Amino acid sequence: MRGRIIKESIDLFDKKGFSKTSIQDIVDTIGVTKGTFYYYFKSKQELLRDIHLNYIKELLKEQEIILRDEYISFEEKMQKLIYLIIKNIRVHGKSARVFNREVRHLDEEQVKSVNVYRKEFRFNLQKLIEEGIEKGEFREHLRSDIVIFGILGMVNRSYNWYKPDGEVTEEELVSIYMDLILNGIKSEPNSK
Amino acid sequence: MRGRIIKESIDLFDKKGFSKTSIQDIVDTIGVTKGTFYYYFKSKQELLRDIHLNYIKELLKEQEIILRDEYISFEEKMQKLIYLIIKNIRVHGKSARVFNREVRHLDEEQVKSVNVYRKEFRFNLQKLIEEGIEKGEFREHLRSDIVIFGILGMVNRSYNWYKPDGEVTEEELVSIYMDLILNGIKSEPNSK
Repeated sequence: MRGRIIKESIDLFDKKGFSKTSIQDIVDTIGVTKGTFYYYFKSKQELLRDIHLNYIKELLKEQEIILRDEYISFEEKMQKLIYLIIKNIRVHGKSARVFNREVRHLDEEQVKSVNVYRKEFRFNLQKLIEEGIEKGEFREHLRSDIVIFGILGMVNRSYNWYKPDGEVTEEELVSIYMDLILNGIKSEPNSK
Repeated sequence: MRGRIIKESIDLFDKKGFSKTSIQDIVDTIGVTKGTFYYYFKSKQELLRDIHLNYIKELLKEQEIILRDEYISFEEKMQKLIYLIIKNIRVHGKSARVFNREVRHLDEEQVKSVNVYRKEFRFNLQKLIEEGIEKGEFREHLRSDIVIFGILGMVNRSYNWYKPDGEVTEEELVSIYMDLILNGIKSEPNSK
């Protein structure tokens, strides 16, 4: 039931917005009473927080599996992590969109509890860049924090325009991003 | 007065959200009557649309000046265009944030009228990439549409975390992005 409430409320928040969706709307859609809602969530805010916690904790678990793999290069890890985010657009795009738009309705404590995990995801990527630099796979003198903000901005924003069932497959999108991130757009110098 | 209404309503929408801000709230803040509001705007929706039209038309004008310059390379044009977006965070960050969050309150016609200009900005950048490829400044076989979605995601998203008065100056941020976009993060191969 908890999962069902989360799923239906994501749809409602996406369509009507968080403010205009009442707990009554949510329980009416599922066909249960308000009591059922309050059994799982203290408030609409807590539900919104849990929508994102669900999503980000799942991502973190999958991130950890990729980062732990000792048999692939940093470049391959980066590719798998970007694929992880792109693949998630299909499954969690709506939930990410709702969260980004409605985060202002959470109180400070709730925002903090979500940001702990968001930061962890970001710092793990930063560490990947730094280790890759150390091992000579990535260029020296990169500012890993800003590079990761840039890469995440690029990849995360895809949920705004990318259609998983459109002309470009998820694999193609990942490979275009990887090429851009690894090699940039400048043509090779004729000589050096 | 029109500019004043736009300015104050951006602040209110940012703080309270579009749904929870009434026209009464807006005119009370400025100390005028509702009549004054309706002299300039048909509705709150129209005001929201105009907030973004103002912002994007201004950007387009500045973009055109940069694109028209015949004495600089494509790389320099790209750099100036990215600087234009970053610089705008200081001035229009709040307005961009409000728009992205509240765009769902606009009707189809209003969204369309804004998207015409957003697309123009994006297509101009795509053309820059394509001309740069033709002239040999940028690599061949780039998919200009997705590359530009990626670059815009990266740069635009900065308004979410970048503090213009923090440790990293606007110029430094632009140069980190340009380095990433042009060269990527991969270390140079030892030989070929």
